[in-house]
Amino acid sequence: MHSIPELSQLFNHYLQEQHFNRKPISLYEPVSYILGLGGKHLRPQLVMMSAELFGRNPAEVLPQSFAVELFHNFSLIHDDIMDEAPIRRGKETVHKKYNRNTAILSGDVMLVYAYEYLLKNNPPSPGSLVSVFNQTAIEVCEGQQLDLEFESLIPSAEAYIEMITLKTAVLLGGALRIGAIMGGASESDAHHIYEFGKNTGIAFQLLDDILDTFGNAEEFGKRIGGDIIQNKKTILLLGALQRANREQAAELHSWLSRSNDETGKIAAVKNIFIDTGAESYARDLLNTYHQKASEALHAVQMAPEKKEVLTAFADLMLRRTR
Amino acid sequence: MHSIPELSQLFNHYLQEQHFNRKPISLYEPVSYILGLGGKHLRPQLVMMSAELFGRNPAEVLPQSFAVELFHNFSLIHDDIMDEAPIRRGKETVHKKYNRNTAILSGDVMLVYAYEYLLKNNPPSPGSLVSVFNQTAIEVCEGQQLDLEFESLIPSAEAYIEMITLKTAVLLGGALRIGAIMGGASESDAHHIYEFGKNTGIAFQLLDDILDTFGNAEEFGKRIGGDIIQNKKTILLLGALQRANREQAAELHSWLSRSNDETGKIAAVKNIFIDTGAESYARDLLNTYHQKASEALHAVQMAPEKKEVLTAFADLMLRRTR
Repeated sequence: MHSIPELSQLFNHYLQEQHFNRKPISLYEPVSYILGLGGKHLRPQLVMMSAELFGRNPAEVLPQSFAVELFHNFSLIHDDIMDEAPIRRGKETVHKKYNRNTAILSGDVMLVYAYEYLLKNNPPSPGSLVSVFNQTAIEVCEGQQLDLEFESLIPSAEAYIEMITLKTAVLLGGALRIGAIMGGASESDAHHIYEFGKNTGIAFQLLDDILDTFGNAEEFGKRIGGDIIQNKKTILLLGALQRANREQAAELHSWLSRSNDETGKIAAVKNIFIDTGAESYARDLLNTYHQKASEALHAVQMAPEKKEVLTAFADLMLRRTR
Repeated sequence: MHSIPELSQLFNHYLQEQHFNRKPISLYEPVSYILGLGGKHLRPQLVMMSAELFGRNPAEVLPQSFAVELFHNFSLIHDDIMDEAPIRRGKETVHKKYNRNTAILSGDVMLVYAYEYLLKNNPPSPGSLVSVFNQTAIEVCEGQQLDLEFESLIPSAEAYIEMITLKTAVLLGGALRIGAIMGGASESDAHHIYEFGKNTGIAFQLLDDILDTFGNAEEFGKRIGGDIIQNKKTILLLGALQRANREQAAELHSWLSRSNDETGKIAAVKNIFIDTGAESYARDLLNTYHQKASEALHAVQMAPEKKEVLTAFADLMLRRTR
């Protein structure tokens, strides 16, 4: 089995060899730009890892890995337009650096190229590959639309989980499933490995919400309390709103409408998260999805020691030390 | 062979049976909205016509026909955002009726569904279908980007033809080629029928430019001279700018900078189009592409009487009476 750094290197080499040299240059320059911004390449690594688990050389699934990375970057470009985000991976977003119209169109062409790479080198079961890819892509669009809807309403915690599942978790599952198909996995194994990826992705998003408030800055890598300052609709805030008694709800809403005294707001809202039980609710949920992921992985018909790489990957994502 | 009205009816029935009932409603309502705006369904009819020519029942290629229509409507939604167009087929454009973000995302999901329908019912050679579809889709994006670039520069007539080829003509060719693949055509026949469609498409766009200035209002269906009033970069204007002597160029530029006296402008610019030879240049070009289309159709290995339906279709598009 290749290690994660080895897979990362394999993918990076392949990425650097893909040139979008066609004309008009103004359409393809943004494609090269966003692909050159780096990122962890988590999704393509999942494709390769999964293919190798089912016996395929990961170098043989580089085009399919790249397809998933292209799709991911297409969705980032369009999401950044919608969110009017100025910065992505520490650099200007595509629509800021170029312009909105180019960002729409360069995103579109990346989505088309994703299908081109998905079927490169005549893979087995092209129909299944496209079908899994479509299902995932459709759900990612649905998740983004839900996220947009949530700007103007307060979703239930359940609706929030639905949103993060669609917007981000299904693509992790989809990447593993594409790798599994490329490796010739059974339909049942492909399903279970998809569920493993999806549930790990949900747990990861929940952890991200929790650490933003309850992590320590050094370990988390960014300032603690940012979500509270921005009134971000996290699982903690949504859970607290559902659990608060009248007094707690009044206090919470009063803090939500304040933008001065950031330190006081972080401390007070954090306490409300604890007192309402939102923190332990969020941690329980995280454990539930982590558990679901473990069960799904357990159900994959494969020698347990082969699964070690996926367990390690999930632990890495979920910052667990064993 | 089915007649064009019969194919139209077949497609309309199929269209009405396709429901986008998934959630979130806000993502799918615009999809149903734009598909419900009507249009001539030229492209899906081309898919069916071509499939039938190669011996396939057109009812069996309805999903692939719908795929092409979905792609076409995806491109309309995104183009309308970029052009800030308020009206499409006499109704509000998607981004006006809903909002820009929804229009981006509903367009995206339609593009994904196009691939879903393209491979519905396990068609033969899924790889070829996706490959032709991708190539066409990539070129349509490139054509739209060229069109955007042309807003801020004056292209040569050759660059203009490259733009209309990519932006609109290749999709007519692509529709015929997809039908040909579905009908089991040889690679050579699929190529020739594609060339027939592409060149007919170019001729059609050139004719549209010519009729806007030199047609009669009744036959053309809209007011004559609209392109001149808007200083639209048509083959006539671009041809005139390339052919004008110093005096004609000065007169033309002077009219381009005037927005009062519309009647005078139309008459004067029309004369410049004639005097510079731009009109006959455009008509010659149109004939050249019509001729190329006829030759490509001639090269398809098929009994001449079977090709009659395509000749009739081209004649209809090019308003020729025989």
